[in-house]
Amino acid sequence: MSNENKQMKLGAILMETGHHVAAWRHPNAGASRVVDVKYYQEMARTAERGKLDLVFFADTLGVPNYNSFFDHNVTIRLEPLTLLASLAAVTSHIGLAATATTTYNEPFHVARMFSSLDHISGGRTGWNVVTSALADEALNFSKEYHLEHSLRYERAKEFLKVVTGLWDSWEDDAFLFDKESGHFADSSKMHVLHHRGEHFNVRGPLNISRSPQGYPVIIQAGSSEEGQNLAAQTAELVFTAQPTLERAQAFYAGLKAKVAAFGRSTNELLIMPGVFPVIGATEQEAKDKLEQLQELIHPAVGIDVLSRKLGHDISGYPLDEPLPDLPESNGDKSRNHLLIDIARKEGLTIRELYMRVAGSRGHHTVVGTPAQVADHLEEWFVKQGADGFNIMSPYLPDGLDEFVDLVVPELQRRGLFRTEYEGTMLRDHLGLSRPNNQFAREPQ
Amino acid sequence: MSNENKQMKLGAILMETGHHVAAWRHPNAGASRVVDVKYYQEMARTAERGKLDLVFFADTLGVPNYNSFFDHNVTIRLEPLTLLASLAAVTSHIGLAATATTTYNEPFHVARMFSSLDHISGGRTGWNVVTSALADEALNFSKEYHLEHSLRYERAKEFLKVVTGLWDSWEDDAFLFDKESGHFADSSKMHVLHHRGEHFNVRGPLNISRSPQGYPVIIQAGSSEEGQNLAAQTAELVFTAQPTLERAQAFYAGLKAKVAAFGRSTNELLIMPGVFPVIGATEQEAKDKLEQLQELIHPAVGIDVLSRKLGHDISGYPLDEPLPDLPESNGDKSRNHLLIDIARKEGLTIRELYMRVAGSRGHHTVVGTPAQVADHLEEWFVKQGADGFNIMSPYLPDGLDEFVDLVVPELQRRGLFRTEYEGTMLRDHLGLSRPNNQFAREPQ
Repeated sequence: MSNENKQMKLGAILMETGHHVAAWRHPNAGASRVVDVKYYQEMARTAERGKLDLVFFADTLGVPNYNSFFDHNVTIRLEPLTLLASLAAVTSHIGLAATATTTYNEPFHVARMFSSLDHISGGRTGWNVVTSALADEALNFSKEYHLEHSLRYERAKEFLKVVTGLWDSWEDDAFLFDKESGHFADSSKMHVLHHRGEHFNVRGPLNISRSPQGYPVIIQAGSSEEGQNLAAQTAELVFTAQPTLERAQAFYAGLKAKVAAFGRSTNELLIMPGVFPVIGATEQEAKDKLEQLQELIHPAVGIDVLSRKLGHDISGYPLDEPLPDLPESNGDKSRNHLLIDIARKEGLTIRELYMRVAGSRGHHTVVGTPAQVADHLEEWFVKQGADGFNIMSPYLPDGLDEFVDLVVPELQRRGLFRTEYEGTMLRDHLGLSRPNNQFAREPQ
Repeated sequence: MSNENKQMKLGAILMETGHHVAAWRHPNAGASRVVDVKYYQEMARTAERGKLDLVFFADTLGVPNYNSFFDHNVTIRLEPLTLLASLAAVTSHIGLAATATTTYNEPFHVARMFSSLDHISGGRTGWNVVTSALADEALNFSKEYHLEHSLRYERAKEFLKVVTGLWDSWEDDAFLFDKESGHFADSSKMHVLHHRGEHFNVRGPLNISRSPQGYPVIIQAGSSEEGQNLAAQTAELVFTAQPTLERAQAFYAGLKAKVAAFGRSTNELLIMPGVFPVIGATEQEAKDKLEQLQELIHPAVGIDVLSRKLGHDISGYPLDEPLPDLPESNGDKSRNHLLIDIARKEGLTIRELYMRVAGSRGHHTVVGTPAQVADHLEEWFVKQGADGFNIMSPYLPDGLDEFVDLVVPELQRRGLFRTEYEGTMLRDHLGLSRPNNQFAREPQ
């Protein structure tokens, strides 16, 4: 299978002021607009002008509780599902996706809100299924400890089964609206779930009709073994952090093989690594732009970011000595090991390591002209490292404008990206088919 | 205290196709648009054109599981919080309120979503705090039984304490956005809740800044003793069903006295009974309109509505005999007793009782010309039965258009209703002050 006749998919991750850890300090970044809905409405319209597949909002249910964290970082945001609904009202095509955790939510609420969003947006919604990497979330939900990693994935798997079951509560043609006879619905086309499982007992039915896309697009981003196995069985879009083409290719081939092993077509799951593009009129201008951002990193922030990524508070250790041995954490193990490996292999000090990861936060960094950025994306796409990319602009809104105005036209000239939307739903953009209702007695 | 120099408040309850139980069968009702966001956007704009205080969406987390219920009733709706966010995007003044239960939600989620909505809407949000009267909801949330009535209210009280505590996580001026020094926030103005209680342990802080209104407006609708006590301590707006002026006056005087007993000013809580207005060019036209709707009630629906209100499935009892003795239920006791009292006093059969309650669902019905409807509202308002009204149009969207185009101008001519909004926030419309941050060290 080759990507040579296909076009890449592109998502824009709209992380408040941008993906660089010091983004908010950039003179043009929207620091004072982080909870201003118009700021996000403007960016969603920009992404739609660029014919991007989707905009995406990551989320956590709380803030890590490091002392200095609150002073120097963007710690506030709009709640993503209410935000997506407001974006739906001012856009017509762009896909609208956000994170909701299966660890501190109830499947009935999640099924209902995403179904509602899919109706409200005319079929443009995607749900990023996460199990919560941030242990602090537990403390906001009456739990003493974060649920253990493999239990989180067991819960996630059952959660997804309940949610998709609820989404199939009603067949697509169950509602008659027959005013004459008084039949609003044909209840023989309603399917009460009666789910009884390890983690959940949920009767159903859902109190909303099946949504335009059947199911909102299922997204996942876990890179652990359990995460990949769940994705291979259930995800349609996978977000991932891959620092090099080789690692991206290995991840891509491995996950697609898992997809096939579960009896699915490899086209049913698209893989989109994150890319952190620093764009300049010249390569030097781009390099200067990144350097300007790096210089804005507050030391306290560097330590905090590294502590979060490692799952340990390392603020007590000397900055200019190598990373000490750390006990096993309950966070995202694959990511912790990746970082520790890099530090060991290259003999990095804590300071060097945080400078490395605090900027682009571990994602593939591309620094150069629009043509150079397009070259990189083309290479990863053609060489089967990716079906598309999540654009993680260094700072916003400028980074998104530059990508849409300078890189997208370059990709379009090369035939690598659409010049017009294929349809109005997110599944249309992504080339994903509409799921059948699992309970329907007749093919729909 | 008299209402003679004040103006009444008006809310529009946008119950899908309208408040009459057979509304959806009316030729002009939006039956096929019940999950079409544009239908609600149009109605919200209509309410805003009429300078109404707010639109409101009731909610339940599921559907009562009577066999015939699904065939003959509107059982689907958009999820209210995503719906409110989409309405905020297309309106500028109208208040936006919805129900969220404290029984099957987590306070962190609820605090965050309503705060987000308050930001998104520029300070126009209200939260109707309910404890869930529908026992079936339990079965969608891994519970075998509905939480017992008084336990629900204990949980609600603690839930509210947590939510308001989370809303005060940040003082109003905690965010500096100081790019030069790298100080995003002044964490000395952050207040970590560290709540430990009977029902919840919630650390905080909330990951969103204090919202434009400080707190979204707190609404409650419970009429039981526990409900009234909670409202008297915490609510700012109370929705209630009162069938006669005398009962409305008794409820009004009683609840205002409770408010004073808790040390609050009686102006801090507004009481808005529901009104079911059937409007015609002549009184006869209005009566004919109601008759047309009553004739559209399917017998199966009448039985179902009564069963829900009583908390018992009465489909097995003979229709044309008096209501039998029923065991105590776990639902809203005050409302169950009210209905049983009416049936006993007037000697009504089941059929007669369901015809009585299935139409307007127990709310005060006013049938007449715009002037007659205005007369009723004026009388209830002047005689201290109400601070304002929830307009529960028999069918939508026509009922709302008629009220806004015909009754509102009549109320305005009489000086009983605003001709222009006093401000841009819901608290401005309602004359409610902005709550201080309970944790702030200096007055704000």
